Amino acid sequence: MNNTIKVIKIGGNIINDNTALENFLKDFSVIHGHKILVHGGGAVANSIMENMGIKPKMINGRRVTDKKTMEVISMVYAGLINKNIVSLLQKYDVNAIGLSGADANVITAEKRIVTDVDYGLAGDITVVNSEIIKAFINLGFVPVFNSVVHDRKGQLLNTNADTIAAEVASAMASYYKVELIYVFEKPGVLYDLEKETVIPEIGKEYFEELKNNGIINSGMLPKLNNCFQALDKGVKSVRITGKDNFNTNAGTKIIN
Amino acid sequence: MNNTIKVIKIGGNIINDNTALENFLKDFSVIHGHKILVHGGGAVANSIMENMGIKPKMINGRRVTDKKTMEVISMVYAGLINKNIVSLLQKYDVNAIGLSGADANVITAEKRIVTDVDYGLAGDITVVNSEIIKAFINLGFVPVFNSVVHDRKGQLLNTNADTIAAEVASAMASYYKVELIYVFEKPGVLYDLEKETVIPEIGKEYFEELKNNGIINSGMLPKLNNCFQALDKGVKSVRITGKDNFNTNAGTKIIN
Repeated sequence: MNNTIKVIKIGGNIINDNTALENFLKDFSVIHGHKILVHGGGAVANSIMENMGIKPKMINGRRVTDKKTMEVISMVYAGLINKNIVSLLQKYDVNAIGLSGADANVITAEKRIVTDVDYGLAGDITVVNSEIIKAFINLGFVPVFNSVVHDRKGQLLNTNADTIAAEVASAMASYYKVELIYVFEKPGVLYDLEKETVIPEIGKEYFEELKNNGIINSGMLPKLNNCFQALDKGVKSVRITGKDNFNTNAGTKIIN
Repeated sequence: MNNTIKVIKIGGNIINDNTALENFLKDFSVIHGHKILVHGGGAVANSIMENMGIKPKMINGRRVTDKKTMEVISMVYAGLINKNIVSLLQKYDVNAIGLSGADANVITAEKRIVTDVDYGLAGDITVVNSEIIKAFINLGFVPVFNSVVHDRKGQLLNTNADTIAAEVASAMASYYKVELIYVFEKPGVLYDLEKETVIPEIGKEYFEELKNNGIINSGMLPKLNNCFQALDKGVKSVRITGKDNFNTNAGTKIIN
């Protein structure tokens, strides 16, 4: 267990911008040692849905995934974005392999149970097949995950890329010292949005304080919950950072 | 080299029809031994392009792949169709893994050189990485190839699924006794289109005769050329057959 692996998640601010994406992938390619990339891609899916005359449906800031929407998500995330990233990584000599949860049965999920809101084909992860991911890594591949998963009954499901990153990181903690890094649109979790003052470190107590003071907003809450869950499941270090210095120690460290 | 592998290619008549696809995949799932699936999906791509207001361009029956078209192809082939097939195979206990040529650098190609016609981002296959495919098979996976390949310089390219099947089959001939099976919309190569009389066997000489008599039409020519090339490269048996009996010895056998 002296091997380290980095699990890095990127979002819309990189994926929606070709130059930012290529710059990020160049930086990603020079990381030494084992690594895994996880990507979202919400804005691209929305713009293609618009092109196709499908209206994105959101409730409480979460996507409602009907059948047509799931088809677009599977096209855009597992096809367009994933294969673009994989081919660009190949250009930079990273032997990337794009994976949805269905591929090699690597991540299974179950359809979210309807309580008050029916989110449609939204999946909650049940199993991350860490042995298979490890086999890919042993073959020299760099897995590139999108947020499409499956229920093993022939249905693809949509899930959240932040959650995929946390769950994959947690699952790999049986084999590696895992570093989980969320690269997002700000240089870290901000104390002051205007001054962009980055909070260097957040533990659970401080997290409660920041929540109570209203400093951490609703968009940040699920991300931070993912971080704490990953730490609880054995991930060694978790960091939330920006695209320009994710390869340094900059950003906000989340501690247990 | 006593291991046999079946490389089976399916086309639009199965992919465009959910029931036909699920029936085929059920039949595919019960095949014993090693197997590889290759799929096209032209009609679905055209209908999605129409939805998005992009006009499919064809010259001499071949697609002209501009940048926008390549994006749709990568979405539809590597995303929508490939992940749907993979998740359905998982339902039938086949541990499928969807692969574009960029994934694990498994198939590289070069952009077709422009002579009289510029087909845009059309790729001619240069290398099929048979060792990696074999490693996947050894891990218990069933590779499911779409026709998206890459140039190792960050560009995805579109190629023909019939050619992918022939090239993958040929590459695997170093390790296995390869059976290549093209499942298409007729029960085999037909002598008489109206009576649907299937030609049981075609060798090179007979092929010339059939061409000269105009019995084999232009759509069938590249498919048969692919078949003969595969045989020349060591593939053990090649058959063109229909979806209802591809698991038997029915159809047209192509012989050297």
